[in-house]
Amino acid sequence: MALDIEYSTFFKSDLPAPSQRWSGFPKYNFIGGHNDAESIPVNKMISSISEVLKREGSTLATYGLQHGPQGYMPLREFISQKVSKRSGLSVSSNDILITSGSGQALDLVNAAFCNPGDTVIVEQFSYGSAINRLKRIGVKPIGIPINHEGIRLDLLTAKLEDLKARSIKPKFIYVIPTVQNPGGSIMPEKNRLKLLEISEQYQIPILEDECYADLIWDSNRPPALAALDKGNRVIHCGSFSKTIAPALRIGYLICNWTVLSQLLAIKSDGGTGALEQMMLAEYCKEHFDKHIKSLCKTLENKLAVLTEAIEANFGTSAEFDVPAGGIFLWVTLPDNVDTMKLASVALSEGIAINPGPEWSTDAVSARSKLRICFGHPDVSTIREGINKLAKICQREFSVPKRISNEKVQ
Amino acid sequence: MALDIEYSTFFKSDLPAPSQRWSGFPKYNFIGGHNDAESIPVNKMISSISEVLKREGSTLATYGLQHGPQGYMPLREFISQKVSKRSGLSVSSNDILITSGSGQALDLVNAAFCNPGDTVIVEQFSYGSAINRLKRIGVKPIGIPINHEGIRLDLLTAKLEDLKARSIKPKFIYVIPTVQNPGGSIMPEKNRLKLLEISEQYQIPILEDECYADLIWDSNRPPALAALDKGNRVIHCGSFSKTIAPALRIGYLICNWTVLSQLLAIKSDGGTGALEQMMLAEYCKEHFDKHIKSLCKTLENKLAVLTEAIEANFGTSAEFDVPAGGIFLWVTLPDNVDTMKLASVALSEGIAINPGPEWSTDAVSARSKLRICFGHPDVSTIREGINKLAKICQREFSVPKRISNEKVQ
Repeated sequence: MALDIEYSTFFKSDLPAPSQRWSGFPKYNFIGGHNDAESIPVNKMISSISEVLKREGSTLATYGLQHGPQGYMPLREFISQKVSKRSGLSVSSNDILITSGSGQALDLVNAAFCNPGDTVIVEQFSYGSAINRLKRIGVKPIGIPINHEGIRLDLLTAKLEDLKARSIKPKFIYVIPTVQNPGGSIMPEKNRLKLLEISEQYQIPILEDECYADLIWDSNRPPALAALDKGNRVIHCGSFSKTIAPALRIGYLICNWTVLSQLLAIKSDGGTGALEQMMLAEYCKEHFDKHIKSLCKTLENKLAVLTEAIEANFGTSAEFDVPAGGIFLWVTLPDNVDTMKLASVALSEGIAINPGPEWSTDAVSARSKLRICFGHPDVSTIREGINKLAKICQREFSVPKRISNEKVQ
Repeated sequence: MALDIEYSTFFKSDLPAPSQRWSGFPKYNFIGGHNDAESIPVNKMISSISEVLKREGSTLATYGLQHGPQGYMPLREFISQKVSKRSGLSVSSNDILITSGSGQALDLVNAAFCNPGDTVIVEQFSYGSAINRLKRIGVKPIGIPINHEGIRLDLLTAKLEDLKARSIKPKFIYVIPTVQNPGGSIMPEKNRLKLLEISEQYQIPILEDECYADLIWDSNRPPALAALDKGNRVIHCGSFSKTIAPALRIGYLICNWTVLSQLLAIKSDGGTGALEQMMLAEYCKEHFDKHIKSLCKTLENKLAVLTEAIEANFGTSAEFDVPAGGIFLWVTLPDNVDTMKLASVALSEGIAINPGPEWSTDAVSARSKLRICFGHPDVSTIREGINKLAKICQREFSVPKRISNEKVQ
């Protein structure tokens, strides 16, 4: 039916393409922050939410419960303990803002800091949605290459010198130092201290994203940048999407009040969902540590299955560093492989992967790279999916030359 | 402590003032969409969320559960039934987008339609946050006066003619036809048909906000604009904040796919909170109608207490139309009362009210008006609060001349 009103003439001209109808997840789903379905602690979630509702359910009658716009106090208290224990970060519940996922945390910082035309420094290979959020508001993300220690500090300094010479001051440096997304690296402490020095020297704040930091197999990691920061240079964010469940939309920001009070003023959502905050606070204070331990075991096993399957199917064609945590593997294929094309063909055959250019400020350097998320598919789906992906890659790009191990079960 | 980084030099220049630390709700809380605490169906919520988690809890492992970015299918199905029964609006679950509160619904429409400098038509007295959301993105809201039938259609037509002559085409007309906020009116069906004609004649879409429409004491109301619309002129939104609980952040948008697919493309929040969607779907399909009936009885009683208290304390100084539903009363005081000042003094004495100018496109015409929300305070708090408010108003503005009824209990 023809539309009565020609909406296209009403829309802003710089919108992303309209969405397609959702038609279900692909069978081999190696994208997104989805997690292990068996690990969702359903029964304990039920008792937690029942307990807290029995005790405080009637407070749902007010926006923000009885805890104000920064979020449900017991959850802020848990986060305060968690980041102290796990990230070495000592803050009070007053320094924490609960957000609707860490995506909203990024949106709030972008909205407070960035005008169209502004510059933000990011890792050259970085969280695709973080890059897209900047681009959508007209900000130019400048990518600094990464290595096995995270962002290349020599190249960062060189770039900041170059920008300074051109009187360009970046609004902030967005980094994922602990389980870098997609690289999987954990930045050593000496690099963290050096990065803070650079932030001080050039007087540029840092936005530290720790969304995957609680998923390190042996919990062994240096303190967060925000923990090492002796000034007020670091805005820190995290999430429960990867540790508990992605369909729960709960993240958090930790920063000084000058920044937090400004972010709060533009957080016009009537508060973050109360049930999810209440359930998480009640659940996490009792069960978080044990849950993480068990989840990490599951994820570590899936990663082993994944790397084994890649080695078996791609042989030496696929290069990667095995990460010490997280839910994704960053793989480099030979130069002739165009992962944008590979991803497109694979999707048509039920296999979803992130082609490198979607996770990069620079499509050329990421052309033959891909991100494979292993949190959600079960181990046999991982094995099958990688075998099928290798066959597609072989068909399209003659990579690998031959698939050494045809048996995938 | 001095901040290491001077953040003020980093922030955008057009931000709202930073927030103050939250210090709890005022004792006499007549603002916000807070609801009756006793009416929160805590026990049934617990059994609903327990049931649905037992059945589907492991689907929390994927973004969007297993239902895609438009939201949890059983909730969309319930909304489809609800709007058919209550608003006369026949749509499928495919036409519905679940949002994180109706505020996000407004944000999405604004973001898809509006560039800075654009014009949007609103009711002169309208939802304060809707007006503010437009202003914050540089849109000019043009207010059309209202009467007891809602937006003045003669003045709307005159304004559209005037704008047309100046080659200004508004992006849409934002109206609250059913329990107008703050006026409380219900637009008659003949006006709705006429408004749709105007929309057709001038080719301007309508954004219809039905956030309070389910709270009409006798459920007696004309069909929604979206139900009467024979084209695709109306984008419809609603919420569960007022009917179930405001701390749950669940609203919805209903519109044609051309618009919905575009809104979906800019809804970059990873989906709306799953627990709240699941609980609401499970609860509402069994209990919504009965809950609404009971809640309406409670609210109608509170409104009677409020109007009685106003009459007892303000006498003929306070004028108002008694609404047939909702949670607020729009009161006009004598011309010499400056409600901005009244609200400020009252707040310092523990009484929160919305001064008219905060709920208006035009501060002058709303100078002596105020919005009093009656959903949350209990009846004795309503009586006490209105008595105290009258005393403050008398002290500051000699209105009313004397308080006839000093006994407030």
